[in-house]
Amino acid sequence: MLRLKSPDHERFFQSAMLEASFGGGEANVAVSLARLGHQSVFASMLPDNEIADACIRQLKAFDVSTRFIVRKGGRLGIYFLETGANQRPSQVIYDRAHSSMAQAMPGDIDWNRAFENAAWFHITGITPALSESAAELTLEAVKSAKEKGITVSCDFNFRGKLWKYGKSAPEVMTELVRYVDIGIANEEDCQKSLGITVDTIDVQSGELGIEKYEALTAKMMEVFPNLSVMAITLRESKSADRNGWSACLRDKGGFRLSRRYEITDIIDRVGSGDSFAAGLIHGLLAYEDRQQSLEFAAAASCLKHSIPGDFNLTNLAEVEKLMSGDGSGRVQR
Amino acid sequence: MLRLKSPDHERFFQSAMLEASFGGGEANVAVSLARLGHQSVFASMLPDNEIADACIRQLKAFDVSTRFIVRKGGRLGIYFLETGANQRPSQVIYDRAHSSMAQAMPGDIDWNRAFENAAWFHITGITPALSESAAELTLEAVKSAKEKGITVSCDFNFRGKLWKYGKSAPEVMTELVRYVDIGIANEEDCQKSLGITVDTIDVQSGELGIEKYEALTAKMMEVFPNLSVMAITLRESKSADRNGWSACLRDKGGFRLSRRYEITDIIDRVGSGDSFAAGLIHGLLAYEDRQQSLEFAAAASCLKHSIPGDFNLTNLAEVEKLMSGDGSGRVQR
Amino acid sequence: MLRLKSPDHERFFQSAMLEASFGGGEANVAVSLARLGHQSVFASMLPDNEIADACIRQLKAFDVSTRFIVRKGGRLGIYFLETGANQRPSQVIYDRAHSSMAQAMPGDIDWNRAFENAAWFHITGITPALSESAAELTLEAVKSAKEKGITVSCDFNFRGKLWKYGKSAPEVMTELVRYVDIGIANEEDCQKSLGITVDTIDVQSGELGIEKYEALTAKMMEVFPNLSVMAITLRESKSADRNGWSACLRDKGGFRLSRRYEITDIIDRVGSGDSFAAGLIHGLLAYEDRQQSLEFAAAASCLKHSIPGDFNLTNLAEVEKLMSGDGSGRVQR
Amino acid sequence: MLRLKSPDHERFFQSAMLEASFGGGEANVAVSLARLGHQSVFASMLPDNEIADACIRQLKAFDVSTRFIVRKGGRLGIYFLETGANQRPSQVIYDRAHSSMAQAMPGDIDWNRAFENAAWFHITGITPALSESAAELTLEAVKSAKEKGITVSCDFNFRGKLWKYGKSAPEVMTELVRYVDIGIANEEDCQKSLGITVDTIDVQSGELGIEKYEALTAKMMEVFPNLSVMAITLRESKSADRNGWSACLRDKGGFRLSRRYEITDIIDRVGSGDSFAAGLIHGLLAYEDRQQSLEFAAAASCLKHSIPGDFNLTNLAEVEKLMSGDGSGRVQR
Amino acid sequence: MLRLKSPDHERFFQSAMLEASFGGGEANVAVSLARLGHQSVFASMLPDNEIADACIRQLKAFDVSTRFIVRKGGRLGIYFLETGANQRPSQVIYDRAHSSMAQAMPGDIDWNRAFENAAWFHITGITPALSESAAELTLEAVKSAKEKGITVSCDFNFRGKLWKYGKSAPEVMTELVRYVDIGIANEEDCQKSLGITVDTIDVQSGELGIEKYEALTAKMMEVFPNLSVMAITLRESKSADRNGWSACLRDKGGFRLSRRYEITDIIDRVGSGDSFAAGLIHGLLAYEDRQQSLEFAAAASCLKHSIPGDFNLTNLAEVEKLMSGDGSGRVQR
Amino acid sequence: MLRLKSPDHERFFQSAMLEASFGGGEANVAVSLARLGHQSVFASMLPDNEIADACIRQLKAFDVSTRFIVRKGGRLGIYFLETGANQRPSQVIYDRAHSSMAQAMPGDIDWNRAFENAAWFHITGITPALSESAAELTLEAVKSAKEKGITVSCDFNFRGKLWKYGKSAPEVMTELVRYVDIGIANEEDCQKSLGITVDTIDVQSGELGIEKYEALTAKMMEVFPNLSVMAITLRESKSADRNGWSACLRDKGGFRLSRRYEITDIIDRVGSGDSFAAGLIHGLLAYEDRQQSLEFAAAASCLKHSIPGDFNLTNLAEVEKLMSGDGSGRVQR
Repeated sequence: MLRLKSPDHERFFQSAMLEASFGGGEANVAVSLARLGHQSVFASMLPDNEIADACIRQLKAFDVSTRFIVRKGGRLGIYFLETGANQRPSQVIYDRAHSSMAQAMPGDIDWNRAFENAAWFHITGITPALSESAAELTLEAVKSAKEKGITVSCDFNFRGKLWKYGKSAPEVMTELVRYVDIGIANEEDCQKSLGITVDTIDVQSGELGIEKYEALTAKMMEVFPNLSVMAITLRESKSADRNGWSACLRDKGGFRLSRRYEITDIIDRVGSGDSFAAGLIHGLLAYEDRQQSLEFAAAASCLKHSIPGDFNLTNLAEVEKLMSGDGSGRVQR
Repeated sequence: MLRLKSPDHERFFQSAMLEASFGGGEANVAVSLARLGHQSVFASMLPDNEIADACIRQLKAFDVSTRFIVRKGGRLGIYFLETGANQRPSQVIYDRAHSSMAQAMPGDIDWNRAFENAAWFHITGITPALSESAAELTLEAVKSAKEKGITVSCDFNFRGKLWKYGKSAPEVMTELVRYVDIGIANEEDCQKSLGITVDTIDVQSGELGIEKYEALTAKMMEVFPNLSVMAITLRESKSADRNGWSACLRDKGGFRLSRRYEITDIIDRVGSGDSFAAGLIHGLLAYEDRQQSLEFAAAASCLKHSIPGDFNLTNLAEVEKLMSGDGSGRVQR
Repeated sequence: MLRLKSPDHERFFQSAMLEASFGGGEANVAVSLARLGHQSVFASMLPDNEIADACIRQLKAFDVSTRFIVRKGGRLGIYFLETGANQRPSQVIYDRAHSSMAQAMPGDIDWNRAFENAAWFHITGITPALSESAAELTLEAVKSAKEKGITVSCDFNFRGKLWKYGKSAPEVMTELVRYVDIGIANEEDCQKSLGITVDTIDVQSGELGIEKYEALTAKMMEVFPNLSVMAITLRESKSADRNGWSACLRDKGGFRLSRRYEITDIIDRVGSGDSFAAGLIHGLLAYEDRQQSLEFAAAASCLKHSIPGDFNLTNLAEVEKLMSGDGSGRVQR
Repeated sequence: MLRLKSPDHERFFQSAMLEASFGGGEANVAVSLARLGHQSVFASMLPDNEIADACIRQLKAFDVSTRFIVRKGGRLGIYFLETGANQRPSQVIYDRAHSSMAQAMPGDIDWNRAFENAAWFHITGITPALSESAAELTLEAVKSAKEKGITVSCDFNFRGKLWKYGKSAPEVMTELVRYVDIGIANEEDCQKSLGITVDTIDVQSGELGIEKYEALTAKMMEVFPNLSVMAITLRESKSADRNGWSACLRDKGGFRLSRRYEITDIIDRVGSGDSFAAGLIHGLLAYEDRQQSLEFAAAASCLKHSIPGDFNLTNLAEVEKLMSGDGSGRVQR
Repeated sequence: MLRLKSPDHERFFQSAMLEASFGGGEANVAVSLARLGHQSVFASMLPDNEIADACIRQLKAFDVSTRFIVRKGGRLGIYFLETGANQRPSQVIYDRAHSSMAQAMPGDIDWNRAFENAAWFHITGITPALSESAAELTLEAVKSAKEKGITVSCDFNFRGKLWKYGKSAPEVMTELVRYVDIGIANEEDCQKSLGITVDTIDVQSGELGIEKYEALTAKMMEVFPNLSVMAITLRESKSADRNGWSACLRDKGGFRLSRRYEITDIIDRVGSGDSFAAGLIHGLLAYEDRQQSLEFAAAASCLKHSIPGDFNLTNLAEVEKLMSGDGSGRVQR
Repeated sequence: MLRLKSPDHERFFQSAMLEASFGGGEANVAVSLARLGHQSVFASMLPDNEIADACIRQLKAFDVSTRFIVRKGGRLGIYFLETGANQRPSQVIYDRAHSSMAQAMPGDIDWNRAFENAAWFHITGITPALSESAAELTLEAVKSAKEKGITVSCDFNFRGKLWKYGKSAPEVMTELVRYVDIGIANEEDCQKSLGITVDTIDVQSGELGIEKYEALTAKMMEVFPNLSVMAITLRESKSADRNGWSACLRDKGGFRLSRRYEITDIIDRVGSGDSFAAGLIHGLLAYEDRQQSLEFAAAASCLKHSIPGDFNLTNLAEVEKLMSGDGSGRVQR
């Protein structure tokens, strides 16, 4: 998607400039993984115009292979962003209807070729929310990946303003998640995307009750026994600038909670969930110890909050430094 | 429409900024007329979001009444613009499909109320190009205006990338123009929008053959006897920065040619046709002498080439000064 | 006034750019009220040049009627602003001497016409500080409003650098406030503008003693029995970025204290008093329960601290959301 | 003065940014001379605030001594500038009333100290236009300079929007010019500032009649026999971007005409008269041959048209290169 | 190299911003060729820091393979640029001493691997000017290419401020050019880089004498019989904004002259020589008819003058359109 | 040095702009002292190009005398800066190798002339780290100062990425410090620059153990009995935005600790050490009471954290206001 942001903390169109960059769930994960040293391929549909050309240039610049991007009709989705502060939240206006991806159909991407030599496939709950055909394409993809023995991760990523084509999120996602190995969610995705709840989790309050997430992850793995890992990010929203940030993970070995980060001057939290997903994929591949895997994901996504744009423009060394406990912010020279 | 322009002469997305403003055929005419002192009302469909709110704020700022803007579904059309130089032309990428206006239907605007106390109605050939229903709405509007004895002007404004809903421009426009009093066109609109030709006019050559425009306007008034005035802008494109600019007009009294302006450092020529239309409407209302009317329109639209953005942010005094022959560009202090 | 701000947190003229917008006490209140859905009219004097034209365009864009702005001699006042951080305060340099408004005389505005159909008149203590004739004009206005039974609110708004024409603030303001129904002040205005004190309130200390404000509002209503409501904003200044923010109000029913907001990353606090005044006017009109009226005003002005520029570019829904307790700053999508 | 310019070719307040720099007749000359290697001192009145501090910093940066700037009451004059293009002229709005300089009085500057070791004194016709007391101060200055045997140059610089304090330009300037050795003017200054005319010179036409300037300079030296040199810049205004540029000079040795420059893409012509004055002062000091003196002045001021801002940020080598005939604009690397 | 440009037409450090991009002779050619559809590989030395990372990202974005970039000690060369106007030339300040490339040694790049499957090798005369070891590396490269039967093109590209390590350009270049098939030069490169002259060519005059270039190319091919094509760009410098632009070419079949372009509003002429070289390589590969090859190169490099930055961000369709005669600059929509 | 900073909190080259300013240890101190009212002279080597000219202009603007800057070969050092946030630290990339200063030799500056009428000489540990000859020049300078009875202060300023010419910091600095009266350091400089340690001080932990600094300063004065004052800044790094800030000082009279400042929204901490050094020099000159001297230095450098750029653009009144306890950040108008 093309991301159009008001400068600084300005409200929409307060001045005559917009900051233009590119982003979006799966693209953000792809860029993160490439920066962490993985061979990363982004498969999608984009229109055949110079806006999409620029998007592809950005992905190439960050070492993401674009060879499975199909150029088709439709438009490039756009989202407008203004950055909040204090009690005023950041705001996103989507202008993504009729995007090329929403018009994608099963068969549009040749999964046999795309999955050749692939070890991991990551999807989000945003794509199946776009249209019925996009949902079918997603299902086709996970089935194909599963067949080939590729690990499948899915960020449930509930977006209430999508899901307008006649099916509810749980209807579609419940089937999809049956093919998933690694489930990823934020505080409310399990409930809203899949209808899985434990006692109410009040995400407005800013208070976490860890025991609820112990129960929720347990229930998730019970309902979806195919999941080998279920990870949830834990955001404590105190204001638009100040969040507590941590994450938890359950696997066969039990429940684990990450270190908690106090983030007091958020630069840009859009894409932090995606940076967690990428961090977790890297963490699971890089560390035997799943506490380490989780800590890597938490540290990577903590850093995202300090970086403007959708992409988590950090690297292995920076994440490992934070993971090892150095978040002192002393000037590096 | 939201207009998103690359800074300076940069190509699309060469840097991470876009200049955001608002514009579009009819809106540009409405703003021009308001600046020339007329009570100007813009009737349209816009979505109910903060992008369209900003558009409406701009119109209000320039004294255009927005009370007949209907807020509905769909999106606000967008166009991306890069400014050319020398042999490299400016380029426009439209992202206007599925706009609210394209989804407009006959009946969506209450023409009885909108035309109360109105003396003039201006439309362009862009709206009927958007969709079949928009074309019907346009036809409904001109018929209603005609019935009420309101003067109707129409800028034929052919846009090749639109007209995709199954009808050709001449099919639709020919009927529409039957209700028009004042026809306005550029060098190629009559041919492409209405299929009216005299020997080929080669707009690439940068040379004008005035006699052809004498013939063309004559033929237009023959085919459409309802036209009381037929005006055509005459652009000699030497490069993206350098144009000759003049216009001609035919009415019952014969054929008239305006003064010719040499424009050597074009700042922004988008919207110059609209500024001519507004200038002509003003000119016809303000001057008995139609040579004067034409000269006013030519001078107003000449100035537009020096003003960034879609809107012709000039005023009566500036146009009259140029019309009276002072284009010396001496600092005003 | 024209507001010229150094970019970001730069000191004056550190770089070669200034951010230009418009603002000023009464204009800010007018814009706020228009955004909250009220018909808002701004009566003032402005010079007849293109700087003032631009100011008027801004007001129109935000739905403020400018039909009672008189164009006269003098200049448009300017203020220069640099934004502080941490222990460094924001700084304002006024260049407003000889403004059109300072040259305004009784009779310049036709109050009979201006107050036709008006229900509320709001003034501030800034206008009478400009010049003797402006003070007389203000007095003329409140008397006229009072006669017509229009509610009069006044933000005392003491500005030490003004009041240079030979009279002290209390000399002028004491008479003016006799015609006021709703008094509005910050922590030190009552003392400095009117000479009304209870034991010293130390606004530098950053500590509030609520009981002092109980006493101060009581004393105000004793001295000015015409006041039906006396409201005071309570700012705890910890640094240029961090303030506590709340407000109190006394009416016949007693003393009320609003919820307190912790604001940790102030974007722009200029205009927050004005946003409180507008919030209070709306609150008093919209809610029977004056605790609600006060809470609305406190929430509206809390949000102002997060918005760049003089104007409080928020809306009813956002204020009500914060008022209802949701200041979590979670991204809205 | 503070100069506030709309970005690029934007009209006033089209976007929310202003480019801020400093300039003004005498300051521009002082900076030019310092850049050409002369010890340059700027004597003036400025207010005691941070806006004026910034102005002084700029002068110091460019090696102008500010030790005779007196800090006093009043304000720093401001001018707003938008840059024209093609047939649309650049526009200046002055907001300089009540400046410190307008309030300056004879005696405010200690000319005895200021003129110690000075060899040249330059003034313009702008200062005596500000106020009666400023005119008196100017007269005091030229008399003092004359007494001390310092060469006095004066750029007549007629500004129609000034001269509002009850005396006309010729009334004041005629006396002033009696103390001047080197007279400098543009095409219309002699007429408007001093009432000296030969047959009408039509500066709007863009055509020069050199013989008229031969006559005009002759008449000037007849009326003011104290003048040893009378120089006039000759601008042919074809559009806001395109000017012909040359100059002529008369001294006891006769009339001389400089080379003529075709300037096709004017970047900023504000300050070009001042750059000519500085170039002429340098030229007269540096060259015995007055044709050379004149050529230097013409080349220096030709270059000014290519440099944004009031100051002529060129240097000796660049002027000499152009003077020697190389205006080919080939990249210097 | 990192390119740091003053905004717009500002002189160095007039404001506090620099436009940062990347460029340099060979990189510019590589980007052009990739945009024209060729597989393009850039072999060089860059330091191992984030400045060079950003440079590599840019190359990747434009489809240039960076797999033969060796990361080593030294720094990334920088050049500072200010853009001239009218009689004021653009100016380049090099800060490229001690760059990684200047420290490169024969053996640093594995030419056997780099030339695998390569069909064409392009070098410029800039690299051998950097240092003795860089010159040796260049010689090693062309010899290796020649051995493998790869076509070698060389842009002689004389840079007077380089060549400081004790050898003159002709000493080094004469040997180098013995291995070159396609020689490319501007008006003065043959003379300055190789010492080959025909009667003096006066590049300052802005006049071309085509017959001299006929003679010069003939002499070049006589002195260097290995050259199968010798092409020269012909720039008529009228001012910093206005150039005539054409080119000539000699091969066994004789001398050819391209169409001549009048460029009246140069946006950025840095890199135009490189865009010609790339255009010529494409032209020679794509067209049998060498007039066509030459016309393609001339048109491609003509367009470069309209594009900001070092890279010629045009494409095949745009060049072919201009080559076919359409330089009218009409808006593309 | 030229400082090139990514805009806002962007990572290197995220967008195509760099903020350009000038700075560097000794220059920062010189500017601070000039702003505090002292006659300040900056002696250094700079290349003879327009980049260095701009640097010199900046120093002149801020009243620093540049008459002992020698223009020589080499380049102007550059550093690239990106500003961190939260857990992500700011990052500096030095590109200062081969600078003019690194090539400076003993004898290049005429210390006899430079020290005429001088009362104080300040150096930092950065210069001797550049090259052997620069170290020798530094030693020459301090010896000369000492001889003339000039007070010498030295900020030890350890930079690990420098010190590459074969000697370690302690080898060189130990001798240098023998000539120093006032030693200045941050938490780790004594250890790294001079090898003086007390039990390990863990600067990453963000916790201060004041008793360690009591011991460290005592040890410093024991090892270097020539020191009359030893001062150390105490930074508690909680994140890139939040630091505790204080300082301590030991002289013959004992150990003193300054007030501690909580800085929650750091704008720019580069140059804060330099602002402390300048504050201390002023403090020692201005106050008999060394607690006051220290408090002045701590307050001055606290303010630096709120000011963008290397220079501490504050003034005496602002520092004294903070020193007196007012850090409430209330708007100054």
